[in-house]
Amino acid sequence: MPGPVFDRIAIFGAGLIGSSIALAAREYRAAKKVVLFDKSEDVRARARSLNLGEVAETMEAACSGADCIILCVPVGAIGETTEAIAPYLQAGVILTDVGSVKEKALESMSAHCPEGVFLIPGHPIAGTEKSGPEAGFASLFRNAWHILTPLPQQDEPYNSAVDRLASFWEMLGAKVEIMEAARHDRVLAITSHLPHLIAYNIVSTAHDMESVGEGEVVKYSAGGFRDFTRIAASDPTMWRDVFLNNKEAVLETLGRFSEDLAALQRAIRWDDGETLFREFERARGIRKAIVEAGQDTDETNFGRNRPPKK
Amino acid sequence: MPGPVFDRIAIFGAGLIGSSIALAAREYRAAKKVVLFDKSEDVRARARSLNLGEVAETMEAACSGADCIILCVPVGAIGETTEAIAPYLQAGVILTDVGSVKEKALESMSAHCPEGVFLIPGHPIAGTEKSGPEAGFASLFRNAWHILTPLPQQDEPYNSAVDRLASFWEMLGAKVEIMEAARHDRVLAITSHLPHLIAYNIVSTAHDMESVGEGEVVKYSAGGFRDFTRIAASDPTMWRDVFLNNKEAVLETLGRFSEDLAALQRAIRWDDGETLFREFERARGIRKAIVEAGQDTDETNFGRNRPPKK
Ligand SMILES: NC(=O)c1ccc[n+]([C@@H]2O[C@H](COP(=O)([O-])OP(=O)(O)OC[C@H]3O[C@@H](n4cnc5c(N)ncnc54)[C@H](OP(=O)(O)O)[C@@H]3O)[C@@H](O)[C@H]2O)c1
Ligand SMILES: NC(=O)c1ccc[n+]([C@@H]2O[C@H](COP(=O)([O-])OP(=O)(O)OC[C@H]3O[C@@H](n4cnc5c(N)ncnc54)[C@H](OP(=O)(O)O)[C@@H]3O)[C@@H](O)[C@H]2O)c1
Repeated sequence: MPGPVFDRIAIFGAGLIGSSIALAAREYRAAKKVVLFDKSEDVRARARSLNLGEVAETMEAACSGADCIILCVPVGAIGETTEAIAPYLQAGVILTDVGSVKEKALESMSAHCPEGVFLIPGHPIAGTEKSGPEAGFASLFRNAWHILTPLPQQDEPYNSAVDRLASFWEMLGAKVEIMEAARHDRVLAITSHLPHLIAYNIVSTAHDMESVGEGEVVKYSAGGFRDFTRIAASDPTMWRDVFLNNKEAVLETLGRFSEDLAALQRAIRWDDGETLFREFERARGIRKAIVEAGQDTDETNFGRNRPPKK
Repeated sequence: MPGPVFDRIAIFGAGLIGSSIALAAREYRAAKKVVLFDKSEDVRARARSLNLGEVAETMEAACSGADCIILCVPVGAIGETTEAIAPYLQAGVILTDVGSVKEKALESMSAHCPEGVFLIPGHPIAGTEKSGPEAGFASLFRNAWHILTPLPQQDEPYNSAVDRLASFWEMLGAKVEIMEAARHDRVLAITSHLPHLIAYNIVSTAHDMESVGEGEVVKYSAGGFRDFTRIAASDPTMWRDVFLNNKEAVLETLGRFSEDLAALQRAIRWDDGETLFREFERARGIRKAIVEAGQDTDETNFGRNRPPKK
């Protein structure tokens, strides 16, 4: 088994992702030491009592001696966090993040990142609908993709830093993929950002129907609605920042979605069963492919059908 | 424990719902005898080898001696099925269905239902994304709602037939609710029909993006997209019929959805983080209510986060 990749990692933002990295780095021995910092005193205290690692009281103390720094704050806070820690970043350190949008994250970090620091943006395609330090668990990244969007055309030391960071994520159980930041943002717009927007929106629509009460929506949600509420329970700050920072790709994808939806609407209005059937039929293939690629469980109803305990 | 409610039930359509009723009626002793019929010879053969109950070779044989007949065919086939079995329906028999739309189901059955038959439409709020006789299981209806939409202002014998049918479903583990057909269709439009339409639509949109390949969509679907593909894998015939038969309520609900989505789109375009945050924030409440009402699992990620087996 290979030894730890880093001597000391510093995690900024002890939420779901930050605390999961802390737990995983220790469990899978990917770093000798894990230090966490969070701007909130309350979160620091909770991180400490959860025993996530050493919790630093200042940004300077967190950075001191670290060979890898991982920003686990909402995308909109990546710039200010980089600016705040810039004075403590030494040449040769790796600076990465886990933000769900990569072009803007890169821009925000670049603006403040000192010379000689290896800036390598990243994004784990793993998460849950829960947030905060209590939500973290070590196996979150196992079998999940981790996308790195390194700067193009760099020198040998930079490339070897990318390799080291990739090894770190692999030790946490992830499969690493290299991609351009702009491409990442387009792909994630359809596989993650639009689904969240739609989920939030349908919950809003349900809320505001005067003709159907919220109690009824809740009661009969097993008809399909409940599936959307899971991801709509995700952190509002995180998601606000995703949409503000991946505006172009999200708006383009959303435009396509609305166009397609108008076509289905028209088919319903004009009793065009053939169009409806054709569109519904081809949806089955993609589900099959997702299950075969190991990206979702094959269990009926996500496995929620277990007979109740006797 | 109370004895079986019916002497002999006849199930038309041996798909997911029909086969689940057959298995449940036997397992929970809700009927002394279960007979199934399906228009397809192939399905009849599979139902037989699955040991779902007695499989009749003709509609007449299936109806003969039954005190309760349950139509488990797609909503669009309820009319023709009623018409075909009408000659074999005797006074005093209960005729019910499980169709996901109730006004049109009622209309279709009424048009052909002989005098003296107790016509009581119904709809179990339980299902999965799988179909066919192999998909059934006895515990499907446990702890699920079952909505009955009886005719208004009937006489005592009719009301006692409603009570008997309710008892039958309760023996399968369901909680029975009485509702007007029109109200059912409005409530289900938001809790079930719109979610399915949206899910089908986002899968179509993903399919047709030239800028992102289907392979990439599949690969990174854990970001949220995969959640939608589950219900989009549901039976196309069933869902075509739902939309064609609950047109008005679906179009109205869809209109609200599109309006709300346009507002979110506008907020993204104009960098209105406050509106986004506000809308996202209130979505959490409804998730909490659904979990508290026992309508979904509280497990993170629907429980799909179990660490992989070693
Ligand atoms: N959740 C997912 O499924 C997922 C998946 C992949 C990537 N990501 C990305 O991971 C990052 C963190 O998300 P998360 O799910 O871990 O969120 P989280 O549980 O809400 O944690 C975010 C942490 O960042 C801190 N923070 C918030 N605003 C800040 C600011 N202005 N300055 C400094 N710190 C701030 C929060 O502290 P306070 O509590 O004190 O505000 C909190 O400790 C985001 O960039 C997100 O895009 C999330
Ligand atoms: N799936 C759910 O989650 C769910 C939940 C609640 C209620 N429902 C309702 O339950 C009913 C059955 O759905 P299901 O999920 O059980 O579907 P399914 O598994 O596809 O089974 C439907 C059965 O009906 C038969 N059928 C199809 N077209 C027919 C026709 N024109 N005439 C006679 N029989 C026909 C099919 O036979 P062939 O295979 O030979 O076509 C099949 O055996 C539908 O009305 C649906 O709205 C479904």
